[in-house]
Amino acid sequence: MPALPETHPLNTRTGASGLVRAYRGDRPEVTPVWFMRQAGRSLPEYRSLRQGRDMLDTCLDPVLASEITLQPVRRHGVDAAIFFSDIMVPLRLVGVDVTIEPGVGPVVAEPVRTPADVERLVALDPARLDEALEPIREGVRQTIAGLAEIGDGTTPLIGFAGAPFTLAAYLVAGRPSKDHLEARTLMRSHPDAWDALTRWAADVTGRFLRAQVEQGASAAQLFDSWAGSLPLEQYREHVAPASRLALDAVRDLTDASGRRVPLVHFGVGAGELYGAMDLDVDCIGVDWRVPLDQALERIDADVTVQGNLDPAVLGAPWEIVEAAIDHVLIAGSVARAHVFNLGHGVPPTADPAVLTRIVQAVHAR
Amino acid sequence: MPALPETHPLNTRTGASGLVRAYRGDRPEVTPVWFMRQAGRSLPEYRSLRQGRDMLDTCLDPVLASEITLQPVRRHGVDAAIFFSDIMVPLRLVGVDVTIEPGVGPVVAEPVRTPADVERLVALDPARLDEALEPIREGVRQTIAGLAEIGDGTTPLIGFAGAPFTLAAYLVAGRPSKDHLEARTLMRSHPDAWDALTRWAADVTGRFLRAQVEQGASAAQLFDSWAGSLPLEQYREHVAPASRLALDAVRDLTDASGRRVPLVHFGVGAGELYGAMDLDVDCIGVDWRVPLDQALERIDADVTVQGNLDPAVLGAPWEIVEAAIDHVLIAGSVARAHVFNLGHGVPPTADPAVLTRIVQAVHAR
Repeated sequence: MPALPETHPLNTRTGASGLVRAYRGDRPEVTPVWFMRQAGRSLPEYRSLRQGRDMLDTCLDPVLASEITLQPVRRHGVDAAIFFSDIMVPLRLVGVDVTIEPGVGPVVAEPVRTPADVERLVALDPARLDEALEPIREGVRQTIAGLAEIGDGTTPLIGFAGAPFTLAAYLVAGRPSKDHLEARTLMRSHPDAWDALTRWAADVTGRFLRAQVEQGASAAQLFDSWAGSLPLEQYREHVAPASRLALDAVRDLTDASGRRVPLVHFGVGAGELYGAMDLDVDCIGVDWRVPLDQALERIDADVTVQGNLDPAVLGAPWEIVEAAIDHVLIAGSVARAHVFNLGHGVPPTADPAVLTRIVQAVHAR
Repeated sequence: MPALPETHPLNTRTGASGLVRAYRGDRPEVTPVWFMRQAGRSLPEYRSLRQGRDMLDTCLDPVLASEITLQPVRRHGVDAAIFFSDIMVPLRLVGVDVTIEPGVGPVVAEPVRTPADVERLVALDPARLDEALEPIREGVRQTIAGLAEIGDGTTPLIGFAGAPFTLAAYLVAGRPSKDHLEARTLMRSHPDAWDALTRWAADVTGRFLRAQVEQGASAAQLFDSWAGSLPLEQYREHVAPASRLALDAVRDLTDASGRRVPLVHFGVGAGELYGAMDLDVDCIGVDWRVPLDQALERIDADVTVQGNLDPAVLGAPWEIVEAAIDHVLIAGSVARAHVFNLGHGVPPTADPAVLTRIVQAVHAR
């Protein structure tokens, strides 16, 4: 098992943080809290930085990416930073012609529809990323330096990558798609080509995740936006193995005491899949649709849960938000440990003041 | 209980059809099969009729609506017609400024965001529909006449309406929306206004459904496109009561032997909700994500199941389609009765020849 350098934050600053302890199964005095997509459009300081700037270009600018990552830590006092990036970044870096179109989402110039398309795609050597990921590495290093300056300097950074199925869904459809029919059709029609595609995507996204951890992220979250479109049987057979591969890319990295970097797995609308989503991870992120205690019953392992305040309550009067927070905390209390979060990303329309107040409320509970 | 006229198809022609028998709990010799959205863009004869014609205008043209409804019955030999319409039709007819924009979906000119907006909306009297629904009534009558001319004339028409939550999701967001956050925020923030909105929507959509049944539909399906965005608790408290109201609009209509018109309830991605979706209906439609036998375990009633071939297999080689059909039939065999269908609407890209072949295969099993 390759040990992370002695200077890695997990060895120097974040190992005893509430977040890392909770992921590892402890119950720190205060429930740690962060928000998926906390760095982003809900923040005016983000919107002013992004003005006129392309999404992927922003992700690949180390100064901007680290500044955006730090913004919600400064503002909300959350217990984790999550690296500001886009799941498509490693695809762009490996040579796929992809853009993020405002108001649309990821658009792939040449969709991967047939086994021949897959063959062409997987000829792009993921090893290219060793060099190409340098802007990401630099962004993470600058983020780590910035985090050391905030508060007591113990706030951990979470590394972030898209799951192979979600990458494949964009690659096959060429753009955001309802029900991901194109990808699921390829999976059904050409399972061998599909498996080659998702193994390749796992390699690509795994290298992206590993680069973040090596440079200083203290945990790693695999994010499957579209897994919820799958029946359990298909997920188990044609998706979970690739997601496991992606997680394997960081699984061997250990801190000075030999403990691995905590791994988190989250899927949107994945209520049917929890029984198959524990790929030997430390924590399962739970969507807003399923109460945490019920999700746990479906997970065949003793994991930490993360989540799952319904983003729809953010616009409600504070007493309703407060009741919903308590609801989540009570459901989370049956888990070995709980990291408070939303059940999905922060909506662009969210009022940042409400998010700050939620952090304070969770900390005060 | 108001009895349907003696001349109603349920009394004269469709009462002994496989579809009606299966909905009522029998197992006819041959498993009945139809496809959600069978009338629509997958058919070249539909595309040529629709060319240059607005969606809602088409729905409100009795000649076109009935012709489009009949097309898949002629082509595929399915065991049911489903009335070609759009869930937004009754909203347009009651006075809401709504259009269906090609490539976008329903767009509501004045979104209903606040309790004051709801108050203005519900001032539109649903009783207006008694007159305004005439084009729909005429479309149904022409469809019934057309069905009498196809095959042995016993093919039933299914009436169709959107569930109150789905209507409300469009009314509040003003257009198709990810996760239906706007509607769910109103539900959380102003439950009284929300309940007023959905009760009104139930009245409107219920009248639409009743008009179809009175004019000759032999069954009624309530379609909740967006229920899958809801946690069970919210669904039970703030959605199911309105859906029940909508179904109540047709529940009292009986055939000559005093049996009510079969009721079907379907929600997309509603795996978490099956425990609350049996609103005393005869049949639950099941999404492709949950095997029929597992869905039944979650439904606290002895119902017929409808579904649920994954639309993603339609593009696969025939032996894969065939295996998936058998998979669905085997899972459906534990139910009291089974109506074969897809687990969602026919995708516009589907090959009609495959659909025809599926009908033949299900009939031959």
